[in-house]
Amino acid sequence: MARDERGVTAQSEDFSAWYNEVVFKAGLVDRGPAKGTMVIRPYGYRLWERLQSELDRRIKDTGHENAYFPLLIPQSYLSREAEHVEGFSPELAVVTHAGGKELEEPLVVRPTSETIIGEMMAKWIDSHRDLPLLLNQWANVVRWEMRPRMFLRTTEFLWQEGHTAHASEADARGETMLALDIYHEVARELAAMPVIAGEKTPGERFAGAVATFTIEGMMRDGRALQAGTSHYMGTNFATAFDIRYTSDAGRDELCHTTSWGMSTRMIGGIVMTHGDDKGLVFPPRLAPHQVVIVPIVRGDDTTVLTATDELAQRLRAAGVRTHVDARTQVTPGFKYNEWEMRGVPIRLELGPRDLQAGTVMLVRRLGRDGKEAVPIDTLPQAMPAILDEFQAFLLARATEFRDEHTRTVESWDEFAEAVSTGWAVALHCGIPACEEDIKSVTAATPRCIPLEGPAATGACVRCGAASAYGKRVIFGRAY
Amino acid sequence: MARDERGVTAQSEDFSAWYNEVVFKAGLVDRGPAKGTMVIRPYGYRLWERLQSELDRRIKDTGHENAYFPLLIPQSYLSREAEHVEGFSPELAVVTHAGGKELEEPLVVRPTSETIIGEMMAKWIDSHRDLPLLLNQWANVVRWEMRPRMFLRTTEFLWQEGHTAHASEADARGETMLALDIYHEVARELAAMPVIAGEKTPGERFAGAVATFTIEGMMRDGRALQAGTSHYMGTNFATAFDIRYTSDAGRDELCHTTSWGMSTRMIGGIVMTHGDDKGLVFPPRLAPHQVVIVPIVRGDDTTVLTATDELAQRLRAAGVRTHVDARTQVTPGFKYNEWEMRGVPIRLELGPRDLQAGTVMLVRRLGRDGKEAVPIDTLPQAMPAILDEFQAFLLARATEFRDEHTRTVESWDEFAEAVSTGWAVALHCGIPACEEDIKSVTAATPRCIPLEGPAATGACVRCGAASAYGKRVIFGRAY
Repeated sequence: MARDERGVTAQSEDFSAWYNEVVFKAGLVDRGPAKGTMVIRPYGYRLWERLQSELDRRIKDTGHENAYFPLLIPQSYLSREAEHVEGFSPELAVVTHAGGKELEEPLVVRPTSETIIGEMMAKWIDSHRDLPLLLNQWANVVRWEMRPRMFLRTTEFLWQEGHTAHASEADARGETMLALDIYHEVARELAAMPVIAGEKTPGERFAGAVATFTIEGMMRDGRALQAGTSHYMGTNFATAFDIRYTSDAGRDELCHTTSWGMSTRMIGGIVMTHGDDKGLVFPPRLAPHQVVIVPIVRGDDTTVLTATDELAQRLRAAGVRTHVDARTQVTPGFKYNEWEMRGVPIRLELGPRDLQAGTVMLVRRLGRDGKEAVPIDTLPQAMPAILDEFQAFLLARATEFRDEHTRTVESWDEFAEAVSTGWAVALHCGIPACEEDIKSVTAATPRCIPLEGPAATGACVRCGAASAYGKRVIFGRAY
Repeated sequence: MARDERGVTAQSEDFSAWYNEVVFKAGLVDRGPAKGTMVIRPYGYRLWERLQSELDRRIKDTGHENAYFPLLIPQSYLSREAEHVEGFSPELAVVTHAGGKELEEPLVVRPTSETIIGEMMAKWIDSHRDLPLLLNQWANVVRWEMRPRMFLRTTEFLWQEGHTAHASEADARGETMLALDIYHEVARELAAMPVIAGEKTPGERFAGAVATFTIEGMMRDGRALQAGTSHYMGTNFATAFDIRYTSDAGRDELCHTTSWGMSTRMIGGIVMTHGDDKGLVFPPRLAPHQVVIVPIVRGDDTTVLTATDELAQRLRAAGVRTHVDARTQVTPGFKYNEWEMRGVPIRLELGPRDLQAGTVMLVRRLGRDGKEAVPIDTLPQAMPAILDEFQAFLLARATEFRDEHTRTVESWDEFAEAVSTGWAVALHCGIPACEEDIKSVTAATPRCIPLEGPAATGACVRCGAASAYGKRVIFGRAY
């Protein structure tokens, strides 16, 4: 990467250009040859692996089991649930030929696995003793994208999809909220994204769901990103796929099912929640490298390199993910810029003078300006707290940003102004035509009815009709 | 699973039927709706996750980085390397329609990723400083199967595929052997499969490779299973995809590339290496449950259940993967049979009398007959050694079986007899027509030229021509 290629467009100038430049230049992603596909490069994939292992642990700790279901699904399966097929048909990639022949029935590349998992659940569940059936799958899915955007909307993406079956509506609804809680915790505690958890309005529900819940994050351009969703399917898929059980009392009953997913889209969310004009800013709990050490070597002197390696080993022994950038073909200044662009939380600079003084220069990616000379000896034991402080700082900063760009509005003018830079919290009638009207005028959509929103009723901010939901709704433009 | 459904065909009666029954009945797998696809059920997937985490750690420890490349590859990419397209064309699944339209260029569902990764390597590599480029991907791949068999040959399977680029042949060949060594270690130390590492004959090489190396395991019916392969590609893919670098001396050079893969096929290998007429036998280092505890409860007495839970917690604290089977709707005897069928290495039976005596009944899945009363108090600290001993026993038993079924042969009659029950180690001319002839008469193919085989030359066991390779070749019937 030549020096003059590292500059990026300022966020304030063109946020979209900033995003597109930074994800490529930081080495997170590259474009695949087929329309809208992406290559997740090692630096981006390590972030995903960090997120994946944390999420997987929480999924298993709550009693779910991983399994794997086929990629290719008979086209007829999709059609069994009317809303589901309608929602996904325009996005499907279809295999028509295989093994050198035309197939009798085309196979769809899974856009999501409700249908094939529904078919297997019907086979595996007999009695109430088989319930709840708590499954999760890590997989790739394909949804044809007309306006692709790296991580946010790609033709293929990686995700986990939880699929569960329960004896009662109460159990299934409890599961739906449990999954949402896991997403909320992962977004907030690991990605430092102060998301809002809420329910989608009927018009924004998943195709085939009775209720869809979401966590919505605010990006630094004021737009919303849906960062994870959890769906209560009622008995819709159970009816379509005949997922039934014999109750304790010997009765034949339909199951209640759920599904929930979080994807590589989260990488885009992290980029747009924390990044700045210098590039990425990664939260320490997910950062591939938490600390980068740049040795400043004069001539043939090897003492600095030796001290650098020793410090790196001590940091690693303290559980800190540490990278040493010992390249000789670029200058320290080049490295500083590059690791700022790539979002490493803490940079350490170690030169002969520092070494003599027994200190190292510590530079935070954000939060406090300037360099701080810290004692080398005690740094490994101090580093976890420094990283925790940085993690907390990112969450606080993003929360402040979100709150500054969220406005409770009473009038249409206020609404229109609020959604031009952030979110409007408004009373709404819940009428689909009114949602459509708002969208066509402002590009804003209802993001969610926040779970923690206080009770409120009154006149719809747009049409004046009586408000729905018993609460205000968050509106915003979205990715 | 009703009691009478649990019996399986004896291995000696029909090994193939035994395999098909046991993988389904033990809950490892189910059939997917599309031809030759499989559902990996939680119990099978946990085994895969164990293998995956162990293999992934070794791949990372040797300097490789994970990344993710697109599933869908333009059809024209496959055609760029002549042998590669010829090898894979009959197996391709092709997406012709997406987003509601016919595609201008059909997309192939990856059967392997050499081509798309080659394209990206060409883009990412400029200078010798970018080498070696050491990538790995965990992914699903699709190869259309006419005679599918769960885990062994399925239309879709999961694997890791390593892809690396190097400045020289020596480096690339070193990498090829490094990957083979990792597979050898994983197979031997974790799966307790005493595989033989060797090179494939030219007729058995990967499509587009200069040299293919393999680890071959012997299954309990005497057949061979190729359990992992590592390929040196020479400059074939570098030429087809223009993967070049500028050398230290400023010259423009072609890279040398490698690829290597291990897949869910290993699950089939484990089943067929260790299983017996009672069902699966899992090696402790990969077993989802290393220990199952069956409490024997009389009436309403809860002391046994309490003691069971306490013992389970102490075992888990000692790092032992422990499952408690506290079901009330089936008898202890039913559970014993079921967990034998499902291959759990160690079963513990705990009833009121045992509890009074301060002991628990320990039953090994294989190796020593009968039950052994062991003190509860010290069992958690003793268990790791008991599991290690069981692991070592499985490897020794499989090694003994392999050696008993491997014969160094001098005549054609001996050859034909040896390959009817196991492997023949024979001199061979290396002529493709002679390989074909042997295959058509005996169904045996050259499995590998073992790396550790001593030098040997003489007359071909089949045609009498001068032997090739300077060594004997292992022949056997294969999966």
